[in-house]
Parts: sequence; structure tokens; C-alpha cells
Amino acid sequence: MKILIKGANVLQPDYSTGVADIAITDDVIAAVGEVPGDFAADYIIEGKDHFAVPGLVNAHTHASMTLLRSYADDMELMDWLNNKIWPIEGKMVEKDIRVGAKLALVEMVKGGTTAYADMYGPCMESVAEETIKAGVRGILSRGLIGFAPTAMKSLAENVDLYKNYHGAGDGLISILLGVHAPYTCPPDFCKAAAKVSAEHGINVHIHMSETQDEIRQMQEKYGKRPFQYIAETGLFDRPSIAAHCVWLDDADIAMMKEKAITPVHNPGSNMKLASGVAPVPKLLAEGVHVALGTDGASSNNNLDMLEEIRLTAMLHKVHELNPLAVPAAEALRMGTEYGAEALWLEKTGRLQAGWKADIVLYDMNRPEWCPRHDLVSLLVYSANSGSADTVLCNGKVLMEKGELKTLDEEKILREANACAMDLVNRG
Amino acid sequence: MKILIKGANVLQPDYSTGVADIAITDDVIAAVGEVPGDFAADYIIEGKDHFAVPGLVNAHTHASMTLLRSYADDMELMDWLNNKIWPIEGKMVEKDIRVGAKLALVEMVKGGTTAYADMYGPCMESVAEETIKAGVRGILSRGLIGFAPTAMKSLAENVDLYKNYHGAGDGLISILLGVHAPYTCPPDFCKAAAKVSAEHGINVHIHMSETQDEIRQMQEKYGKRPFQYIAETGLFDRPSIAAHCVWLDDADIAMMKEKAITPVHNPGSNMKLASGVAPVPKLLAEGVHVALGTDGASSNNNLDMLEEIRLTAMLHKVHELNPLAVPAAEALRMGTEYGAEALWLEKTGRLQAGWKADIVLYDMNRPEWCPRHDLVSLLVYSANSGSADTVLCNGKVLMEKGELKTLDEEKILREANACAMDLVNRG
Ligand SMILES: [Zn+2]
Ligand SMILES: [Zn+2]
Repeated sequence: MKILIKGANVLQPDYSTGVADIAITDDVIAAVGEVPGDFAADYIIEGKDHFAVPGLVNAHTHASMTLLRSYADDMELMDWLNNKIWPIEGKMVEKDIRVGAKLALVEMVKGGTTAYADMYGPCMESVAEETIKAGVRGILSRGLIGFAPTAMKSLAENVDLYKNYHGAGDGLISILLGVHAPYTCPPDFCKAAAKVSAEHGINVHIHMSETQDEIRQMQEKYGKRPFQYIAETGLFDRPSIAAHCVWLDDADIAMMKEKAITPVHNPGSNMKLASGVAPVPKLLAEGVHVALGTDGASSNNNLDMLEEIRLTAMLHKVHELNPLAVPAAEALRMGTEYGAEALWLEKTGRLQAGWKADIVLYDMNRPEWCPRHDLVSLLVYSANSGSADTVLCNGKVLMEKGELKTLDEEKILREANACAMDLVNRG
Repeated sequence: MKILIKGANVLQPDYSTGVADIAITDDVIAAVGEVPGDFAADYIIEGKDHFAVPGLVNAHTHASMTLLRSYADDMELMDWLNNKIWPIEGKMVEKDIRVGAKLALVEMVKGGTTAYADMYGPCMESVAEETIKAGVRGILSRGLIGFAPTAMKSLAENVDLYKNYHGAGDGLISILLGVHAPYTCPPDFCKAAAKVSAEHGINVHIHMSETQDEIRQMQEKYGKRPFQYIAETGLFDRPSIAAHCVWLDDADIAMMKEKAITPVHNPGSNMKLASGVAPVPKLLAEGVHVALGTDGASSNNNLDMLEEIRLTAMLHKVHELNPLAVPAAEALRMGTEYGAEALWLEKTGRLQAGWKADIVLYDMNRPEWCPRHDLVSLLVYSANSGSADTVLCNGKVLMEKGELKTLDEEKILREANACAMDLVNRG
């Protein structure tokens, strides 16, 4: 299949922009700019007045949790978890997981997200299947609460998920080990998980150092900060992504650089849950390629990666009282190229020949895109994801002119609303 | 003219929500809920699957500056002002002011804003005329830079604007005195402005205590903090709105409460320009009805009030590490009812019989509005202004199903882009 995107404003790998054609052959960008004369497109997409950027990468979320969006907000963290989120999560069955993931996929594609790292469960097979059907890249893991009575069973499920789905969907799916967090996973469990990850070569997805309370708790219990605690169980001997990383000291940062641990910044969730402000400018200055994520829709409350990109560019400026902290282009790179890198996606996150055809086109015929002095500034500081118009992932058109091609939006929204109402009313 | 909005989900004055009809007679809401049997609607708007809230109020902006959106970003404040913003503002003529305001009006109406407080110039008459044509409430002032050689001429222009436009457009327009800021207005000028404001009874719109540097400067120059400095010139003897109010001490807050000074919080601008975080939770706790604004599109970079509402609910939580700081409903009230109050708009900002018919309907048939556990949470934490679907101001339909009724969107965007390119290339 050969697709030609004609005359779009293209974000170049150096973050300059200019009008160019994009030629796509199967899953890969064949050319940007000078399209070979003999390129015979099967399908043409008109790019005029559109801004083409790499597909956005959500490097940390809990997709099925989207069913709980707006169910509980503006509460103290432990009150919220103990009395609202955990009890209702305990009631979720396969159907909720599947329908929640479908709703999340609709929202992600409509917002220009072409890859996401998920941690949830049970029944992550259903999430994998729906993700393949949607045509999105899913880097999936079974969320593992180490102190739960079913912890070892869940760990075995995560390994089965890896065996059955790693590389599935023509490579759209890969599987990580979803060790939840230091404060929910005791040492024996972490060691068991580390053993499994080494044995099968499964990379790790974990929450790290999200709140001050977590640091305090780990120090009281083990006399160690979370990073040291996890490292000593052997889990960080595999490449890892670590969500949040809000409260870091120099030793934590040195360890992230020494081991292959990529932090995933979740500014929306960190703001709404009052977790704190991660030292993102410092990490970037030290050469760490910080990725971005939304976290779950209970703590964000959406899966809008463009909003995370904007918050990243805005929050650190005011936090450091420095208008140069995280410029627009850097935030955009974190939400695309750095995200793809964090999730071990090869040649993904740039509009460049030989790279994967994961592309979003934004419709600029809108007031918030006017006037067009600087397109990167417009995207990051002014537009909202409502202008995401056409989305390709792995060379396949997932949305064109706002219309989803692989997902039945109307049906899924109806189903999701009914499923969510049933869930909250379930005895 | 009688309009009936049928079966919308309505935000009640107590911030509960429920399905109800809204009957409108001319500029006023005649009934919410039980519509009299003899109400003969001339026009019916289908409200099913829509969330009806009061029109959003942007209590501080510089509308015509929208022409400079994305012209200069990610710079140090004084570098940005001295080398980019002020030189180009110096070149702006009537046409730029008019076209910039039209672009701003398109963006505001599409985003659900029905009232805005503007400070700019010259040629604010053109802004008033365009605002009346658009059908939006404009609380306009001539921006007065006291140390400019033309300061007294501008002050006279502001008075003329008041004489000619205060109450114009059937009350849509009112006029304030746009004294720019303590650090741009020397004492003699402030006293002259205070005299004029007392003489004509013109209320004041001013920037106050935006940066730490401003506080330092005023203390060095006059031995006083900005609030004390302005108060001593007599300007605060008139009711005033004060944009920013980031760096306040207890005496400043006491003065705001004693005099009729309403702070206007601009979280987007304060974040992007790295000004600081205003003590909004403290102000609210002391009973101050803080309003919200976008500031100009050079420092935000849009006029999206829903985004300011969200940022207000998010920023203070993380800044104070308190997840209960500024709940969703409070932020929404700041962007509607408190804003209207700040701008002296009577019976505006609630969906209640006898109050002004300024209404936004959000289309909830979108993934970010699903599932619908709590509509206020969905609006504030999940939706973006792309779902603003139908907008009424003063009982007149300004947008229906995304289509503008009083403004020619396509033409204005074309005109604004051309005008902006001409402006930046002007010798
Ligand atoms: Zn998470
Ligand atoms: Zn301003």
C-alpha cells in the first residue's frame, strides 16, 4: 500500500517546518519532500493547511480505567484510593477491561496518539486484541500489586501475556512486566518479578517516587529510597520505564542514567493529585530523554497527550520561575520521539525517510491556529487536540478528517457509558 | 424573541446538574426547569446530550494582540517585551487593531466566552464596533502607558471612549480606564488618571504585582509595594479589576478587600511567562471572588477560558501539594459567575430565571465526555473547548452546532493571517 500526503506543513527532524509531500510505503515513510517520480500512490491525502507531526506517544496510562473518568475527584489521595478507586477496580471484570480499553482507544486516536504504554488488568489479552483491531501500538503490561494475595498468579498472567502477545499484531504489541510500585510490592515479590524478567527478557514498567509520602514510607520501612530499594531486588537490571519520578535526589538520577531507566513525566496527574513537580529541566539538562504520559483518566482526567505536552512546557517555567525551562519544541519531542525511544520503538517518532509512518495531521483552519507565525508554538501553546484531523499508525489510516476508520465511535461511547453505569451500580 | 433550549443537562446555581428546559425571553432567562405552558418559542434548540453552563467570562485580555500569537515565545521577559512585542505593537494601526479583535472574537465565541475585559489601543472604538457586531459583552479600556510621551493624549482617548461607548450596543459595551501597571505609570500620571476616573465615574482596569521584579522595582523607586503605590495616587478609590496579583502580602490582600479591587487570575500567562503562582486558594478562603482571564495571546497563547478554568483547578493543587485546593466547581464559578461580578455585569453568570441569557452548550457526544459520572468534573478536567457547540449571549444565538452566526469565520481567519504577515513585514 502506497499513500501520499500532499503539501502538508511538515515538522522536520530538526523541528523546522515547511511544506512538503510525504510518501508512505506500507508501514514506513519512503520520502519526505522529494517524492520519487515513479511513486504510484494507491491513496492520496490532501495536506494543505495541515500540520504534520509524528504520532504522539503516551508512555504511561491505565487505559481501561477510562471507565472511571469523573467517578471521583477532588479528594485526598488515600481517601480516593481506599474508598473510591480500589473498591470499584476490585469489581471490574473482562467486559469492563475490554470496553474501557475501547473507549480509551477512541479517545487516543482522536487525539493523535499512536502508541501507548499500559499497565492494568486482569484480562490484558482483551486489551491487546482491541489495540490490534484499532491499529494502535500497545506496549502492555499486567499491573502487579505485590502485596495482593493473588500477586504470584498475576505475575504468571503477565508472563503468559508476554509469551502470547509480545510482537503480536505485526509488531504493534509488545509486553512489559507491570510491577506496580515500590510501596505496593514487597521485596520477595520484586525479587520473583526480577527473576522472571531476567529469565524471559521482559522489560519493566513501574511507578517510581510519585509522592513525598512514598519516599518517607520506603525509608521508614526499608531505610532506603524507592530507587535503591527496587534496584537491590534486581528489577532494574532489565531496561525499565518509571512513571512519575517526581521526588528524585542526585543518586536516583545517577542510577537512572547508569541503568537503562527512562522516566515518564505525567504533569496532568501530578498536578491534579498534588503529587509534586518532577525535576524535568534538570533531567533534560543531564541528557535524560524524559517521556510523557497521561496516567489514568481517574487522575488526569483525559488521555490527551497534546495537553501533557503543553503542561510540560508551562508547568516547569512557573515552577522554576524561568521562561526558558522546557521550550515548546523540547516538550513536543518528549511527547513523540523521546516517548517512542522510551518504549523501545525503533525508528519511530520522526517524519523522516525510513522511519515508521506514525503521523498526525492537525487542521489549521481554526482561529487558535491563526496567524501562523510559528507552527510548533501554535501546536504546543495554542491548539487543542480537537484539531487532530487525520491519524496514521504503522502506515495505516486510523482517522481521516475526524472520522475513525478502525473503531465505531458512536457504538463504543454508548457501550462505555452503559458499562460504566453498570459497574458503579454493581453490588 | 422567545427561545427554548429543550432537555439539556443544566448547571444549576448550586452546581448540581439535571436535565431541564431553558426558556429565554429577549435577553433574559425566563425559566429553567418548569417552563410555563403558554411559553410560545420562536426558536427551539435541541439540548439533548448537551451540558448547558453560563457563558465564560474572560476578565483580562488584550484581544487585538491575537495577531501576534506565536510571533515570539520562550524568551526572557524583558528581551521579549523590548525586542519583540513592544517594537511590533508600535507599528499597529487601526486596521491591525480591528482585525486582531475580530480574530479574537471568533476564537472567544467558538470557545464559549460571552464577555471579556480588554485593555489595548489605539482605536478602541473599532474594537467596540466589532464587539457589538459580534454580539459579545465587551468591557473595554484604552491601555495607558503612563511614561509614554503620548500618555495624556491616550488618557483623553480613554475618556472619549467612555463618553461615546459606555452602555453602547444595548448595554453590551462598558468602558473602564486602562491604567497599564504601576511600573509603567509614574505618580503624576496615576494621579491624573485618578482624577479623570473620579470625575466621570469610570472604573479601573490595571495590571498589579505580576512579577517579583515589579515588587522590587517599586520598592526601590518609591519605597512602596505596588498596591500601596497605586492606592496613594487615588486610583483605587474607584472600583477596580487588577490582573495577575501574583505576589501579594497580607496588607495587599487587606487592601483588596477594603477597597473594591477584584483580582483577575491568569494562570496560563503566569505559567508561560514564569511570573509565579498567585495565592488563589488563600484569596478564596478569605472570601475574595477571584475572576479568571487569559491575558493576551502572546503570553498564553490562546483565549481559551475553559483551559484557564482547568489550569486554575490543577496548578494550585500541585503548588500547595493539596488535592483539595480549588475544586472543579469553584474554578468553574470563577470563570463564570465571579468573572461577571468582577466586571460589574448584573445578574450574569448563572442559569437562573431573571438572569441574563448568556449560555454555552457543550456537545457531550465525544470520548472525553464519556462516561458521565459527573458533568462538572468532565467539563473542568477532561473536555476541551472544541466541544463548545452552541453559544448565546444576551439572548442572541452567536453560534449553533459549531457555526458562527454573527461572524464570518473563514473570511476573518484569512484576513487576520494576511494582516499579521503584513504587520511583521512592515518597515
Ligand atoms: Zn499510573
Ligand atoms: Zn495583560
